[in-house]
Amino acid sequence: MNRADVVEVEAANAEYYAAFEAGDLDRMSALWAFDSDAEGQVSCVHPGWPMLRGRAEVLRSWALIMANTTYIQFVLTDVQATVHGDVAMVTCGENVLTAAEGSESDFAAGGSIVASKVFVRTEAGWRLWLHHGSPVMERDDDEDDEG
Amino acid sequence: MNRADVVEVEAANAEYYAAFEAGDLDRMSALWAFDSDAEGQVSCVHPGWPMLRGRAEVLRSWALIMANTTYIQFVLTDVQATVHGDVAMVTCGENVLTAAEGSESDFAAGGSIVASKVFVRTEAGWRLWLHHGSPVMERDDDEDDEG
Repeated sequence: MNRADVVEVEAANAEYYAAFEAGDLDRMSALWAFDSDAEGQVSCVHPGWPMLRGRAEVLRSWALIMANTTYIQFVLTDVQATVHGDVAMVTCGENVLTAAEGSESDFAAGGSIVASKVFVRTEAGWRLWLHHGSPVMERDDDEDDEG
Repeated sequence: MNRADVVEVEAANAEYYAAFEAGDLDRMSALWAFDSDAEGQVSCVHPGWPMLRGRAEVLRSWALIMANTTYIQFVLTDVQATVHGDVAMVTCGENVLTAAEGSESDFAAGGSIVASKVFVRTEAGWRLWLHHGSPVMERDDDEDDEG
């Protein structure tokens, strides 16, 4: 892997979270690749959501999410970026702080998410081809698999 | 996209589910790529699980899951495969039928999952680089976004 590629991809990954935290739909839109007949459609899975396909549907979901999010902050853990030619994959954990409506606290809700992203290299830089986020659930009954 | 590539990738995707349904760890192992210093580690997220990284950890999870699954069957929906050079992405829905222990019915449990996969082209064929599955949850409060 080219180290410069990895740095660029990590920056694109950071921009995703910065755009989300800022509630800036234009910045989020700029990050996503364009659908094409030859290359297919972009895809996005928000935690607990079904698969969204195509730039229009994905950006509509972001407009909805941003309109309903008064505050959100991410602390990323264990970010790993790998590059294969013109495609890059980034996986990480997201520790999420978000404001709950009607709460006196600014930090009433949160959660642990794992996220996988695929970026493609374009003339305009690395662009999101896939984001898949999912909630990490408690699994008490699997804790005994250590032995 | 080369149509022959897409057909091969769709076959690799089908083999993943056939290996899971058969409970065949060898077939599942054969599907996964190898970690490398240059290319990084494979990653896997089972629904509700944290991120697993590296071939050893991923295959250990498959051994555990297969040992605890007496019956499982997948009906895939909306399979979409895209190929970018030597990397392919497959997204689909998984309708899951699985046997619950102690139940009189063979089809006691099930669920709706969405899955994203990344395959890389190797000399031995397309190999899994990432699998990310997550549960689709009911969202009554979002049903009004149609208007």
